[in-house]
Amino acid sequence: MEADIVLTNGTVITMNAERKVFSEGAVAIKGDEIIAVGPSELAGQCQAQEIVDCSGQAIIPGLINAHTHVPMSLLRGLADDLRLDVWLYGYMFPVEQQFVGPEFCYWGTLLSCVEMIRSGVTCFADMYYFEDEVAQATAEVGMRAVCAETIMKMPTPNAATYEDGLRYCREFMERWKDYELIVATVGPHAPYTCTPELLRESARLAIEYDVPLMTHLAESGKEVEDSEARYHLTPIAWVDEHGLLEAKVVAAHCVHVTEGDMRLMARRGVGVVHNPTSNLKLASGVADVMRMSELGIRLAIGTDGPASNNDQDMFEEMRLTALLPKGFSSSPTAVPARQALAMATIGGAQVLRLDHLTGSLEAGKKADIAVVDLSGPHVVPRFQLSDDNLYSQLVYAGKSSDVCHVLVNGRFLMRDRRLLTVDEAEIIAQAQRIARKINTFMAKREEDLLDKMVAIGGLEEREIYEVQVKAEVEEEAIWAALHRPPIEIVRRSEYRQYDTYFLFADPDKGHLRYREDIPVGQGMEVKPGYSLTLRGPTKEREYADSVILSRLRFRSTADRSLRFYREYFQPDEIKEITKHRRRFHIMYKRVRFEINLDRLLEPRYDQVLLEIKSRTWSGSDAERKAQLLTELLDVLGVDRERLVKREYVDF
Amino acid sequence: MEADIVLTNGTVITMNAERKVFSEGAVAIKGDEIIAVGPSELAGQCQAQEIVDCSGQAIIPGLINAHTHVPMSLLRGLADDLRLDVWLYGYMFPVEQQFVGPEFCYWGTLLSCVEMIRSGVTCFADMYYFEDEVAQATAEVGMRAVCAETIMKMPTPNAATYEDGLRYCREFMERWKDYELIVATVGPHAPYTCTPELLRESARLAIEYDVPLMTHLAESGKEVEDSEARYHLTPIAWVDEHGLLEAKVVAAHCVHVTEGDMRLMARRGVGVVHNPTSNLKLASGVADVMRMSELGIRLAIGTDGPASNNDQDMFEEMRLTALLPKGFSSSPTAVPARQALAMATIGGAQVLRLDHLTGSLEAGKKADIAVVDLSGPHVVPRFQLSDDNLYSQLVYAGKSSDVCHVLVNGRFLMRDRRLLTVDEAEIIAQAQRIARKINTFMAKREEDLLDKMVAIGGLEEREIYEVQVKAEVEEEAIWAALHRPPIEIVRRSEYRQYDTYFLFADPDKGHLRYREDIPVGQGMEVKPGYSLTLRGPTKEREYADSVILSRLRFRSTADRSLRFYREYFQPDEIKEITKHRRRFHIMYKRVRFEINLDRLLEPRYDQVLLEIKSRTWSGSDAERKAQLLTELLDVLGVDRERLVKREYVDF
Repeated sequence: MEADIVLTNGTVITMNAERKVFSEGAVAIKGDEIIAVGPSELAGQCQAQEIVDCSGQAIIPGLINAHTHVPMSLLRGLADDLRLDVWLYGYMFPVEQQFVGPEFCYWGTLLSCVEMIRSGVTCFADMYYFEDEVAQATAEVGMRAVCAETIMKMPTPNAATYEDGLRYCREFMERWKDYELIVATVGPHAPYTCTPELLRESARLAIEYDVPLMTHLAESGKEVEDSEARYHLTPIAWVDEHGLLEAKVVAAHCVHVTEGDMRLMARRGVGVVHNPTSNLKLASGVADVMRMSELGIRLAIGTDGPASNNDQDMFEEMRLTALLPKGFSSSPTAVPARQALAMATIGGAQVLRLDHLTGSLEAGKKADIAVVDLSGPHVVPRFQLSDDNLYSQLVYAGKSSDVCHVLVNGRFLMRDRRLLTVDEAEIIAQAQRIARKINTFMAKREEDLLDKMVAIGGLEEREIYEVQVKAEVEEEAIWAALHRPPIEIVRRSEYRQYDTYFLFADPDKGHLRYREDIPVGQGMEVKPGYSLTLRGPTKEREYADSVILSRLRFRSTADRSLRFYREYFQPDEIKEITKHRRRFHIMYKRVRFEINLDRLLEPRYDQVLLEIKSRTWSGSDAERKAQLLTELLDVLGVDRERLVKREYVDF
Repeated sequence: MEADIVLTNGTVITMNAERKVFSEGAVAIKGDEIIAVGPSELAGQCQAQEIVDCSGQAIIPGLINAHTHVPMSLLRGLADDLRLDVWLYGYMFPVEQQFVGPEFCYWGTLLSCVEMIRSGVTCFADMYYFEDEVAQATAEVGMRAVCAETIMKMPTPNAATYEDGLRYCREFMERWKDYELIVATVGPHAPYTCTPELLRESARLAIEYDVPLMTHLAESGKEVEDSEARYHLTPIAWVDEHGLLEAKVVAAHCVHVTEGDMRLMARRGVGVVHNPTSNLKLASGVADVMRMSELGIRLAIGTDGPASNNDQDMFEEMRLTALLPKGFSSSPTAVPARQALAMATIGGAQVLRLDHLTGSLEAGKKADIAVVDLSGPHVVPRFQLSDDNLYSQLVYAGKSSDVCHVLVNGRFLMRDRRLLTVDEAEIIAQAQRIARKINTFMAKREEDLLDKMVAIGGLEEREIYEVQVKAEVEEEAIWAALHRPPIEIVRRSEYRQYDTYFLFADPDKGHLRYREDIPVGQGMEVKPGYSLTLRGPTKEREYADSVILSRLRFRSTADRSLRFYREYFQPDEIKEITKHRRRFHIMYKRVRFEINLDRLLEPRYDQVLLEIKSRTWSGSDAERKAQLLTELLDVLGVDRERLVKREYVDF
């Protein structure tokens, strides 16, 4: 038999269906393929170009990191041990908004590839932005990867709207569809960051290209609570209702799942990626991999991104995968070492739908291999009572630093711990250079309003598009029109609103509004509401009669005094507006609008003002709503001459 | 300033009370001591014999592994993912009984020292047997250690009784009391393996030598349940009742503790060692270090023994210490990286009462130092927004393989990852040699009765000493004597007992008894008891009129049929004994005895037989009871001519 490379005299752990082990074994490789696996004698039967002695080492399938965000290696250690909202809004989002671009993603990917090769990973699945650069860097290194462009309803560093994201994604998938080592796909971020349309279109795209679709599901308890409060459905049931699970879904996390969720995932063939370190570190909890395994759900392991781990070490994840269920279930036999290694190899390949190519050492598969030293003082001695001794050594005592050689697709990427396809020193230098810029930016950011708002907690992000119109009206006529078809009132309320605006000389800072909402007509039962809203700089676009505003908006409940906020934010100017508002939530052509009938008390304004508003995450949806809004003006009989273009803060 | 060694240009993490960090710092060493810590300029101010450039590296206090069993490195990976009873009785105990001797402990300690030095550990606390060899090997390597000889009521590899253990311990402590780097002490194993006398005498010994006392407390849920059922006290309250906490106690595990236990430990100044990996792996659970920390309990981190971890990697333990409480408490701010590093350094020193010597980098302390590379692809980039960035790097991304240099007491033990005081290859070869012998022994052990009993579960170990006497008597006279002072009957019962003995040609195997106990006189309410008892080979000693038997005894509830056991154990001979037994538990001079009045039905025996029995873990207690038993014969009026020496199995 002719071979290019034969790895021999090692313990071959095939992870094939029978979990066959050759105590003294060999793997023969020709081109990109494994052509034979067997006892060491195999080496004698080969005319091999190169024979590699693996004495004292284990030859295992390359590990598969089935969920990560590789460019985030550049944010490793930037901010840890923080509340989730502070971490996201205070660090991750502003830094990503400012720094994440093609260069960031390219160098971040290379750094992660170096780290992963060094720890025996041959294949990974990524979800981030500028995924074209991620794929490019990965291809240069020579690793195998599934690269998913992240899509969400909020603006991302490379897509102002999700429609832009989907467009980018289709082009990206088209560009890489014939490249052997890269699977390009779409990654709708998570239920709480996606709209039903976004989910449906992502699934359609993945089905069209016949690729797995990546997403995050049921990561935190809050995600589940919010979903149940809003939709009376778990996040998994909700995405299923919107067609997501018709694609070949790879779902990361799945920490907070019901028995019903798990059965649904099993039926739909969803593959689950367990991220034990990240789920602990972000305080999400521990996924019930034992139950999922019993239900026959395909299971893989991932490190998650290096900003929430903080490394991408599959040896650590394997160990935790085996350890955590024991501690939680009080059963020391839960998830034995063999199962953890299976999840990190063949399981990963099955979840990513790459098991015809990788995940085990079998003739006919691609040569994706890691060779791991078993002779270090932390791994010896070696018992041979059963194969379990070997799995124990690898999973409970083995370390990423024990990996000696790594091959992907028949090519050495690392040999004797020396990387062969990349310039490691250059990559580390570039990473440090980019990190220094981020460091400077973060250190200077003290004055940022969002940052200060984040620091006091409870922040939520709001829809980015507001469609609105304002006009002077005759109250009785509007009142009458509101109470007849085609308008249907779904909710009404009445307030006195005291708004205090904090304005700043630098318009790029945006402005803050502190609002006290006092319900009218409830006597002693009155329970005022206090809120703080940050509006970023606004882009304004006229559309027929209405205005489409796009701006970042953040809101939090204001549980401190106005005095506190004034001193804390130190505005350059303060403006106070008091008004009496009757608010109606109405449905018109099955779309919900907010209609306000306002009387300005301070500053005094004699006319009654009508506001019609709607909000959305989507640019095209905003245009659709603007169109309906024009119709509504007619339905309500509003005089176009009396439209008012100012916002209340400018009265 | 004159110095022998100056480490400079590194980031110095002092872990002093203010947690001072020098971004570009130096540590000056003279002899065994740190003489100065400060910015890098310090190096210029020293006349140093040797200046070591630590650019890109962190200079940290050597890590302290505050609870382990170092010789068990030779059992690493022997048996994992098993039920606790199977693991203990099927693997650990038989192997320890057979192999643990001075040679085993010496080489096992060396292997662990190599592993620990390589991972930045400079000081550890051990609990095992032949602790003199552990201390000897550690002294040869040059590490700092607290070595506790484990004492328990069961026989150990180097003590047939706990009295022997305590004697060994005193000699061991005496021998090492003036050696600088070793603290020799006593380690009463755990509440469930100790008697009150053993606890009290251990505490007395530790107080006499003014050394910390090591033990395991509240490791598993079962330990707590059993303690509460037996004593109506938690294990911690129970050991306190018996004076243990009057010593300077270092308690490993403390997983299952009440608020009261924690407050008690805080009051008594008990130091707690957290063992996160081991507690998960053995399915014990997760200790509430957050609450203990709030109560001001001193906290350290340990790996536990390498048979239940399976390595001794303090970087992994630090990371888990920071990660687990987040996942459990749903709070991502729980146990930040800084606190985890503190527990692994200065916290460990405080718990072991060595903080006047080690645990932080401060002038006047001993030079116990690890230098850790921070430039690897899994650790970069480096942010400098606050010191927390640095703690994050070390705890969440740092690995044991990043440790470059290690010094203990001013002496390099490792330099550029080369070990300077031991022959690593020789140690690994010796470890493999010993492991091969164990492997052969275990592979052959198929026929062992205990092993087979273990494999079907539910095993408990019983007292090793039985004091007993048997005599032919007149039932009425005994009956009358039992019912008057000085005898007090505490419990009585009546059974028909069907005993089936499984006997084996090889007397070293011991024998098994399957017993069916049918209560007499309860009509349809009868609930028979089934038990299986394994008796090891018996050593018999006559003492006045009675016999002192010492033998291993194991018991389990027999929930399978006699037929099953017969086929399973395949005895060479079977013997059946049926008897009618009246059993009395009596108190005599405040000691409890069991008195049986038996009529043998099969084989038939015409005389009524009296048995008086007592059981204990202690050889000297057995002698005391034998003395009382002689008195009891007089009290009951037993005719010495009618004593019977045979056991029932021999009738």
